[in-house]
Amino acid sequence: MDEFSFIDYLKKIVPRGRRVAVGIGDDAAVLSVDKGKQLVVSTDAIVENVDFVIKASGKSPLLRAERSNLRDRHAPAGFAMTALLSPEKIGRKALAINLSDIAAMGAKPVAFVITIGKPKHISEAWLKRFYSGLLALAKKYDVACVGGDLSGSREFFANVTIFGEAAPKKIAKRSGAEPGDRIAVTGSLGGSILRHQYDFEPRVKEGQFLAGESFVSSMIDISDGLIQDLTHILKASKAGASLDLAHIPVSSDAKKMAKGNSREALEHALSDGEDFELLFTVPYRKKTKLDKLWKKRFPQAPLTWIGKIEKGTPRIFWRRDGKAIMTPKLRKKGFSHF
Amino acid sequence: MDEFSFIDYLKKIVPRGRRVAVGIGDDAAVLSVDKGKQLVVSTDAIVENVDFVIKASGKSPLLRAERSNLRDRHAPAGFAMTALLSPEKIGRKALAINLSDIAAMGAKPVAFVITIGKPKHISEAWLKRFYSGLLALAKKYDVACVGGDLSGSREFFANVTIFGEAAPKKIAKRSGAEPGDRIAVTGSLGGSILRHQYDFEPRVKEGQFLAGESFVSSMIDISDGLIQDLTHILKASKAGASLDLAHIPVSSDAKKMAKGNSREALEHALSDGEDFELLFTVPYRKKTKLDKLWKKRFPQAPLTWIGKIEKGTPRIFWRRDGKAIMTPKLRKKGFSHF
Repeated sequence: MDEFSFIDYLKKIVPRGRRVAVGIGDDAAVLSVDKGKQLVVSTDAIVENVDFVIKASGKSPLLRAERSNLRDRHAPAGFAMTALLSPEKIGRKALAINLSDIAAMGAKPVAFVITIGKPKHISEAWLKRFYSGLLALAKKYDVACVGGDLSGSREFFANVTIFGEAAPKKIAKRSGAEPGDRIAVTGSLGGSILRHQYDFEPRVKEGQFLAGESFVSSMIDISDGLIQDLTHILKASKAGASLDLAHIPVSSDAKKMAKGNSREALEHALSDGEDFELLFTVPYRKKTKLDKLWKKRFPQAPLTWIGKIEKGTPRIFWRRDGKAIMTPKLRKKGFSHF
Repeated sequence: MDEFSFIDYLKKIVPRGRRVAVGIGDDAAVLSVDKGKQLVVSTDAIVENVDFVIKASGKSPLLRAERSNLRDRHAPAGFAMTALLSPEKIGRKALAINLSDIAAMGAKPVAFVITIGKPKHISEAWLKRFYSGLLALAKKYDVACVGGDLSGSREFFANVTIFGEAAPKKIAKRSGAEPGDRIAVTGSLGGSILRHQYDFEPRVKEGQFLAGESFVSSMIDISDGLIQDLTHILKASKAGASLDLAHIPVSSDAKKMAKGNSREALEHALSDGEDFELLFTVPYRKKTKLDKLWKKRFPQAPLTWIGKIEKGTPRIFWRRDGKAIMTPKLRKKGFSHF
């Protein structure tokens, strides 16, 4: 298989979307953007030995999930699972993390391009399975693959750049949270290394609903951990926040990793990365209406109120069942991707 | 330096363009697309040990330029130069190859996002110099950096996705060449490994002029070599072509590499990659007008007529000074990026 025959293969298997004027196989793709809409663009890569392992190696690679989630050097039960991921799951994740970014803006995903760095230890069969996982998710969200680049490399990487569209006034940014706004989060948090980081459903419908119906004053997806991503909102919005530890939705996988230690499970929920849940702020007057509509519209997706935006500098005040407490001592506050 | 402080650094040094509603630092960027225009999207990566060398290594890496340009195992005089490239030049190239793709569509480049895979052997200082080369070129072409992703990796890579815009009817594709159309190329060809692959000026103005004034029936930029890229046009246009060997513009670097052997110099011009010149077809009736306007508008950029589109299957017939000749035996027809 050379580059051109693989592109021919992709041309055959990739469906073409309604907005695609020129798809795979020219110098560039051409997309139509609906009248009155703006283009929303995000890019995210996954890299071998950082996000996943393909081949067994003498050296233990520093996995992103490992750096993010593990407190000590003993790998939890789920670690081997991570290492043995199928190419379909890796392909799915390459797109899913980008869909999550578009969801966090409240936009509708439209199309994407993908760059692959292909080392010699990756076979044509592996790459085809990678694309089949990726394209299955693309089909589900009606997002068109419109181009890409294939390069040689020593380790596998996949970089997706995704395009969404939204009406300018409906776009949810990290800035915009105001003192008094309530803070909410979808789903449950922590322990994503065991399963969720590859199986998660990007909150595309939820994000479009929250921004499209003007419920949110700010929004982000949780990729770096709740504390870190809330801090991103606080910095962009020039505000502080109070969080109630009793209200944090702790996932069953966080509990599993903590082996019954509830304080440790909470820590996972606060600082593990790659939850890909939506974290957002809502003006207090809209809270009741949102609660009501949400339960009808997304009965499967928990929505939990975890705190409040406060005046002041971007720092977090802590409460438990409404009472102020000391800042919990966390061994890790989240992680940096470098 | 961690990921977030580097993003803060970028936020400070990156200027914001007129179409940028949301720039660096949110989950996604937001762009406005002018009314009646379509969005043109391309993506291209450069990878350490494929496109350039950063650190000396015991193993000789298989450079893309080397695979593309070298006929034997003796590195030419310019090879050491390639290996010792400055980070500024690598950064410049990461964007320039993408500008060239937008140029080949005849579109106006507007913005880009960039993903970096950063290994431990890359310092903060190196990365800042990489960005300074990249951003200097971005400024020259008034194209805004609107976001990106920073990941760890074992070898350095940079993947740029670029956005341009153009009126739907003015976009130049690979398809559209008709029998009788004349074939032209900008600049001169071959030997780009010596210098041109890092110093080339993407033909952005020329591409916008050619497509915007409706001179071209098809267009591509030469990245895989003249023969290979002409074949892309022929396949997309379902046509053949005749090329006149006496009219191929052979670069001085191709001649330098061939050490006075004119047949070998011609071979470089026909099959070396990374010229990043525009190759396009023009209906015969527009040829004279284009020649006249071109000389006024682009006095520094040669435009050479090298052949004609013919009826039939996507193959090339060869001529020398108008007379049909046998297909020249080439040791290499171009290269695949895998």
